[in-house]
Amino acid sequence: MIFQPQLRIPGPAPLPERVVRAMSQPMIDHRGPEFAALLEEVVRGAKQVFGTQNDVIVMSSSGTGGLESAIVNLVTPGDRVLAAICGNFGERFAEMAAAYGAELIRHEVEWGQPVDPDDLRRLLASHPEVRLVLLTHNETSTGLTNDLEALVRVVREAGRLSVVDGVSSVSSMPVEVDRIGADVVVSGSQKGWMAPPGIAFAAVSQAAWEHSERSKGPRFYFDWAQHKKFAAKGATPWTPAVSVLFGVREGIRMLLEEGLDNAYARHRRCADAVAAGLQAMGFSLFAAEGYRSATVTAAVPQQDVDVKAYRKLLREKFGVVIAGGQGKLEGRLVRVGHLGYVTEGDMVQVLWGMEQALEELDIRANEGAGVSAAVASLNRAAVPA
Amino acid sequence: MIFQPQLRIPGPAPLPERVVRAMSQPMIDHRGPEFAALLEEVVRGAKQVFGTQNDVIVMSSSGTGGLESAIVNLVTPGDRVLAAICGNFGERFAEMAAAYGAELIRHEVEWGQPVDPDDLRRLLASHPEVRLVLLTHNETSTGLTNDLEALVRVVREAGRLSVVDGVSSVSSMPVEVDRIGADVVVSGSQKGWMAPPGIAFAAVSQAAWEHSERSKGPRFYFDWAQHKKFAAKGATPWTPAVSVLFGVREGIRMLLEEGLDNAYARHRRCADAVAAGLQAMGFSLFAAEGYRSATVTAAVPQQDVDVKAYRKLLREKFGVVIAGGQGKLEGRLVRVGHLGYVTEGDMVQVLWGMEQALEELDIRANEGAGVSAAVASLNRAAVPA
Repeated sequence: MIFQPQLRIPGPAPLPERVVRAMSQPMIDHRGPEFAALLEEVVRGAKQVFGTQNDVIVMSSSGTGGLESAIVNLVTPGDRVLAAICGNFGERFAEMAAAYGAELIRHEVEWGQPVDPDDLRRLLASHPEVRLVLLTHNETSTGLTNDLEALVRVVREAGRLSVVDGVSSVSSMPVEVDRIGADVVVSGSQKGWMAPPGIAFAAVSQAAWEHSERSKGPRFYFDWAQHKKFAAKGATPWTPAVSVLFGVREGIRMLLEEGLDNAYARHRRCADAVAAGLQAMGFSLFAAEGYRSATVTAAVPQQDVDVKAYRKLLREKFGVVIAGGQGKLEGRLVRVGHLGYVTEGDMVQVLWGMEQALEELDIRANEGAGVSAAVASLNRAAVPA
Repeated sequence: MIFQPQLRIPGPAPLPERVVRAMSQPMIDHRGPEFAALLEEVVRGAKQVFGTQNDVIVMSSSGTGGLESAIVNLVTPGDRVLAAICGNFGERFAEMAAAYGAELIRHEVEWGQPVDPDDLRRLLASHPEVRLVLLTHNETSTGLTNDLEALVRVVREAGRLSVVDGVSSVSSMPVEVDRIGADVVVSGSQKGWMAPPGIAFAAVSQAAWEHSERSKGPRFYFDWAQHKKFAAKGATPWTPAVSVLFGVREGIRMLLEEGLDNAYARHRRCADAVAAGLQAMGFSLFAAEGYRSATVTAAVPQQDVDVKAYRKLLREKFGVVIAGGQGKLEGRLVRVGHLGYVTEGDMVQVLWGMEQALEELDIRANEGAGVSAAVASLNRAAVPA
């Protein structure tokens, strides 16, 4: 059987042909004028996507490296740091801060539930010594999107700095860094940016810069000040992942041509279609209603489903690659990514494959109900002209 | 005027068409079987290139990130570390160690001169508290290659650990990690590997692993233990630069098809041709004789040459991109890279352009003497059948 591969993990996301072709260029001097133009366009576009006039630092690493940059530039060993944790990535962010000497206050929320702004307000009131608050916008492990605007408002009103893992949200859903007043927001190229992995972004507010200048965390590769100094000359301090940046530039061009609001609406329509389809097939959604992510849907299958075997069958027979659960959810969840280069038709195809595979495993999947529910969801959604 | 671009900086190096095409592939799941096969082939090939059976860690970063990985995995803040410095990259390596809390013993050698093994032996004898010795194999800023085998022998005989910046040497000249007994050697994909920037390698000996397990340096993104744990499952701990790895795999295939010894000899022939040509044109070579690098030639031009204007003319009129001096050598040197995807014919073309550009600037360049000397050098060199 041949198939059109459907890479539907929550990143790396599939690459548009335009992006693949954009990477097919001769190598250039990373200190020359062509590179300066490349970096300038990427930074200018990234600022539009982040919705910010703050500096956007471009680093050659995965999103995890981008998050590490926030920790090493902001945390002085011994600092008390509040980490709001509602899944595996929040957990990782907290571990990273601890690795660099932060004394953590761990605010743990049941996985699948959002962080409550009122809880955060109370915690901050009882911990006046805390300067940094680590937040996860989109928790990829549970398919949940926190109300970032509300959480950042609480942090700002308490006079602290918000440090946001936006790795899998920025470019796929509105973040609007300047409007909501987030201090640091990090993202990664392999998510909604429609580019290959290898580039991380950090949007850094003036207050965060001032904090970083005072902070004594050890840093070199991820030192924002070095990046800022070289960016002023149209370069990066260390040799950047040039080919990946060619792809990032093209991905940003495509996003801006589509229009960010259109891209966000497309993600939402795909997410709603998947949610409807999976529920009709007998899955139950893992994330709390009202907080379901536009980029990844986490769902608990019917109890007879062996997640590992199901994913293998999907991959090998239908070309549909989805993710399983992470951390304590390993083996319990499937996660369908719908971010970046994703369309409504892809979702219909993916759900059809997921339905067929369930039937092959002799799991009753309401025969076609999943695809029908997805199509009905798409029919209800308003598609911009 | 149209031209065949000649990117002749000491990295990023030009990409073979095969490598560019190899990157033109759909994105894959970084936790799936295709990625496991990709990583396995890259690691197996990298071990051949390093000449080692030690673990080779594959990280998504520039070579500088690879060097940082050595520091954060091996240095406990307060450790006394000996840094042998003979140029800008040795300086950077030392600064990085200091940033992570090393108490440095700086062994500074005049730029352009090699590190003397006897000096190193004496220094180690008078500093029994030192465990780590930072060495630069190929000092890109001065066009000098240290006698790594002799230096590593001194370190080993003194019972210390050698930590080698091999960023711009490994894959272009023999390193033979196991034979010489180097503990840690780092390289970067954009050099002799004929691949784009974005991947760093670290070859790690058993003694270095044991040291890293005891060391208390803060680390997360570059934590070797995490990389080793995930490598056993055919994956990386964080999302890797997949497209770059497609290119790295193809570059390694090309290197092994050519044969490593042939590749090393090709680099040497190109270096010797450039050295002969530049000298005939009135440049003087910067690095001490007997230590001139196979991957980059640093040369001081005649005193009337404005290096910046010369490089600009070369780039814009002849498509020849060369580097200038770094650090305290800025404006004083030109540096011609000849590493990775480079052939003898490229060198003739580059020297012809360099000669023409000198004439355009009204600098007497012995009219054709540079190209003639390069051709004579190539005629003297034994080319394998």
